[in-house]
Amino acid sequence: MNDCVFCGIVRGEEPALRVYEDRLTLAFMDTLPATRGHTLVVPKRHRQDLLDATPEEVTAVILAAQRIAIAARESLGADGSNIVQATGAAAHQTVFHLHFHVVPRFSGDSIVIFPRPGLPEEIAAAADHLRSSLSVRL
Amino acid sequence: MNDCVFCGIVRGEEPALRVYEDRLTLAFMDTLPATRGHTLVVPKRHRQDLLDATPEEVTAVILAAQRIAIAARESLGADGSNIVQATGAAAHQTVFHLHFHVVPRFSGDSIVIFPRPGLPEEIAAAADHLRSSLSVRL
Repeated sequence: MNDCVFCGIVRGEEPALRVYEDRLTLAFMDTLPATRGHTLVVPKRHRQDLLDATPEEVTAVILAAQRIAIAARESLGADGSNIVQATGAAAHQTVFHLHFHVVPRFSGDSIVIFPRPGLPEEIAAAADHLRSSLSVRL
Repeated sequence: MNDCVFCGIVRGEEPALRVYEDRLTLAFMDTLPATRGHTLVVPKRHRQDLLDATPEEVTAVILAAQRIAIAARESLGADGSNIVQATGAAAHQTVFHLHFHVVPRFSGDSIVIFPRPGLPEEIAAAADHLRSSLSVRL
């Protein structure tokens, strides 16, 4: 799994703006955010997709996603959120390490269907808000 | 919660093509399927969205969704799947009882962004396949 970018992030070898972690999961900002605060949650152990993750891992990842959705409302003023997960190239999975997207939604926002690079300072500011709400030090 | 359609389905008062249930969750076919086999998973107890569901309920729902994604591969020949959940009108939530979509994906399919009524017999056939793979009698 040496060439998996998310494994590299888990190991600390690839850069990422981390906002949450626990024993089984890590959450960090998507660098192609659909909206402000778009976060990815992954299991620390390499799993390709939803089909090969253990129930314990799936549970840990969705509960971390729930915490982030709550934090997005509290810290970013999000009006809602979407959870999105893709298994397989047919579902537009592009990184083959299981990840759940947490996409904060804002009334009247226009979701960018094809994500584009976000402004680094805006991504970093959103990460600060989320970390504050999640009460974690990374 | 008397006017919640998903509560009505849970109570058996509203029609639905059920494919799976356990102590905390119920899964049934979406009547506006984006693809063949499009299924909804809900907690039996009324929860508005991801933010007010208990960790136990969120866990039960996502593990049921995982089982359905696996069943979609086995019984429908799906090449992949998407898990989608919406919290809040800003995220395009339309039924305010927590639900996770399991959308089987097929190579080369074209997701219908705005779902339209599916053919009842096709929905029923997909339900039969899923039930068979999930080994449940409802």
